[in-house]
Amino acid sequence: MKELLYEGKAKRIYKTEDPEIVLVEYKDSATAFNGQKKAEITGKGRLNNEITSLIFLKLKEKGIDSHFIKRISETEQLVKKVTIIPLEVVVRNTAAGTLSKRLGIEEGRQLSSPIVEFYLKDDRLGDPLVTESHIFEIKAATAEEINILREKALQINTVLSSFFNELGINLIDFKLEFGKDREGQILLADEISPDTCRLWDKQTNEKLDKDVFRRDLGSLTEAYETIFKRLGGHQHV
Amino acid sequence: MKELLYEGKAKRIYKTEDPEIVLVEYKDSATAFNGQKKAEITGKGRLNNEITSLIFLKLKEKGIDSHFIKRISETEQLVKKVTIIPLEVVVRNTAAGTLSKRLGIEEGRQLSSPIVEFYLKDDRLGDPLVTESHIFEIKAATAEEINILREKALQINTVLSSFFNELGINLIDFKLEFGKDREGQILLADEISPDTCRLWDKQTNEKLDKDVFRRDLGSLTEAYETIFKRLGGHQHV
Ligand SMILES: Nc1ncnc2c1ncn2[C@@H]1O[C@H](COP(=O)(O)OP(=O)(O)O)[C@@H](O)[C@H]1O
Ligand SMILES: Nc1ncnc2c1ncn2[C@@H]1O[C@H](COP(=O)(O)OP(=O)(O)O)[C@@H](O)[C@H]1O
Ligand SMILES: [Mg+2]
Ligand SMILES: [Mg+2]
Repeated sequence: MKELLYEGKAKRIYKTEDPEIVLVEYKDSATAFNGQKKAEITGKGRLNNEITSLIFLKLKEKGIDSHFIKRISETEQLVKKVTIIPLEVVVRNTAAGTLSKRLGIEEGRQLSSPIVEFYLKDDRLGDPLVTESHIFEIKAATAEEINILREKALQINTVLSSFFNELGINLIDFKLEFGKDREGQILLADEISPDTCRLWDKQTNEKLDKDVFRRDLGSLTEAYETIFKRLGGHQHV
Repeated sequence: MKELLYEGKAKRIYKTEDPEIVLVEYKDSATAFNGQKKAEITGKGRLNNEITSLIFLKLKEKGIDSHFIKRISETEQLVKKVTIIPLEVVVRNTAAGTLSKRLGIEEGRQLSSPIVEFYLKDDRLGDPLVTESHIFEIKAATAEEINILREKALQINTVLSSFFNELGINLIDFKLEFGKDREGQILLADEISPDTCRLWDKQTNEKLDKDVFRRDLGSLTEAYETIFKRLGGHQHV
């Protein structure tokens, strides 16, 4: 029996024999609006496990380390155990979602330059936007750590934007989580999937991400399958 | 007939013969929660006009310029006309209000160091919190201007905190607006009153500010009169 360490909205984290490694199981659960909207969608766990794995491998190729070790089944992967920094690091290339609402900018307008935002990872507080002063006040990260997070996030954005661009996809925005390993090194963790990115088809502007679920735009698995296929994911099928 | 230039929630701005000077008339209107809660409170306009005038004079004494020229009647003052920078600059010494909600910090807890926040002055958008990247994206201010605003806000905080402290009052937080004069110089503008500050009695923690209205804690004019009297305002009566 795998020992469950933590169950989140989209994944379960299990112990392994190695104390520095955890097993991540991707669930079929879809949630939005801080858990207010919920559904079970068969195939979502498999697709996100596959897509995240391919993206972490791609980043690795480009010299960007992550917690990812290897995919071990349709819905499971092994990752390096880290202590998650309780910040959601969001990078935006194009206005959409809460940025459009906050600033009154129409969705789809390209930003003058990528914007990095920090949200406090705290469901009870509704994952609020925080400034650096807020982050320091609650000791969620130090100034030095914030600089590292911002730098890594922008570097990842450069790699992923050009990667998705080659696949005919516009990387609108995405959310990252980082953690610290046993040596205190900051490492990219969690997942990078259509659950955590906004991905629009370059030709049609069709949404190929969780907004399909948030906004009832059609079949989530069809959208995620499109991403998986463009990533070359048919190799696994 | 005075020519009305702009009517806001708390004040009316009129033209004067001098194109560089406007007349500010303080209204008896109280509003909260982005205008959702409203009332007319006789005496509020007079009190805020008096209190703001005394505070701007105090700042002037300490070398901090503002738009304030002079009080000309119970509810009116002359100020230098500026082009308002569309940001509300908030300085916080103690957790309260939206900061407490955002970060889950109990009201009344002193912050490790003063926090400066920027909110977009836009009622339609609900005056959202914005980060520097947001500010640059919508061109509300430049990086240089943000640094000036933050520096001035902290300087004003130092003066006002010690000033109120001498009067037995804890300056919890406050909101400032700045504008640019004809020469492009950034000048403190708008008002500094119990409408725009949180002021707690040092002995009793009694709230002597607009929270009395927001939270139905008693007589707003009594609270504002207390502030006015401690400021030495009886001299005008
Ligand atoms: N390498 C890792 N080590 C430890 N925890 C991790 C790692 N990667 C991700 N996590 C955490 O696993 C949890 C489960 O993921 P998820 O279901 O997405 O949770 P949530 O509902 O908090 O978003 C999250 O809290 C995430 O931060
Ligand atoms: N010196 C000034 N020159 C021009 N406008 C000013 C000056 N000082 C304040 N203002 C503006 O006057 C308006 C009226 O004030 P107020 O009633 O508080 O408006 P609001 O409802 O926008 O808060 C505000 O938009 C404020 O920014
Ligand atoms: Mg998650
Ligand atoms: Mg105002």
